[in-house]
Amino acid sequence: MQIREATEIDFEEIWKIFHEIVSAGNTYAYPQNTSKEEANRLWMHLPRKTYVVEEEGQILGTYYIKTNQGGPGSHVCNCGYMVSSKARNKGLATSMCEHSQRIAIELGYKAMQFNFVAVSNDGAVKLWKKLGFDIVGRLPMAFNHPSQGYVDALVMFKWLET
Amino acid sequence: MQIREATEIDFEEIWKIFHEIVSAGNTYAYPQNTSKEEANRLWMHLPRKTYVVEEEGQILGTYYIKTNQGGPGSHVCNCGYMVSSKARNKGLATSMCEHSQRIAIELGYKAMQFNFVAVSNDGAVKLWKKLGFDIVGRLPMAFNHPSQGYVDALVMFKWLET
Repeated sequence: MQIREATEIDFEEIWKIFHEIVSAGNTYAYPQNTSKEEANRLWMHLPRKTYVVEEEGQILGTYYIKTNQGGPGSHVCNCGYMVSSKARNKGLATSMCEHSQRIAIELGYKAMQFNFVAVSNDGAVKLWKKLGFDIVGRLPMAFNHPSQGYVDALVMFKWLET
Repeated sequence: MQIREATEIDFEEIWKIFHEIVSAGNTYAYPQNTSKEEANRLWMHLPRKTYVVEEEGQILGTYYIKTNQGGPGSHVCNCGYMVSSKARNKGLATSMCEHSQRIAIELGYKAMQFNFVAVSNDGAVKLWKKLGFDIVGRLPMAFNHPSQGYVDALVMFKWLET
């Protein structure tokens, strides 16, 4: 397993993962019908960097890193991670999150923030806690879940060890 | 005093207020040296709508309203308010915030969120509380204040009454 920076050539595979996850509507703050062009902009161009997890030539996961708030907030980064359904429960999210924390420090960030984690996404909440993130905020009914309706969203935060 | 939608012609006056506030670096998550062109994009074009407070032909304040998170988060809006130093303590922020809540409902939003209120900005914190916003999150040392150094930033939230 290798984590490396994504190139435009990787986008075809990234799009499959992105579309699978975003069209489900239960984790990411993107419209379920986000187009391929918009996904390209959001995942490949708007962030500061985008990475892929590759195993035997297959792309199984991807993440981005970007500055969360400008100016007085620019020492805090934000990341988003996606794992292909083909590769769940293999520790890819953990590997990506740990990798992203190292990259964050390299890029000069001091902390990492997740702005919008649906409480219904137990797996993610549990994993981020295990990886040292604290729940620092709870947004009441801020996430409109496709089957559960309005559920709370969590803000999670970690100061990075340098 | 009148609150109305901003036009491009208003931007010269909006820029004076924007620059005055943003260059101080103690309230907004924009770089202190944000250019006029970037301010135009951020304040006039990126948001869904922008308003100005006008009194006797003078623009004394301005605010924007936009969707805070896409997809499953798109029922929550975000606003930013700026008052000229010439017009402080006249209730303009209150008027704009109340106005923005009515506009938010008209636009179909159900709640309003402020993502990044520096705790050092006592006046704002007190005012948003008075206007019904709850502190739902506290981001540790997420705001790099120009004189106080790293201070916490608050996330404030209000479900709107319809």
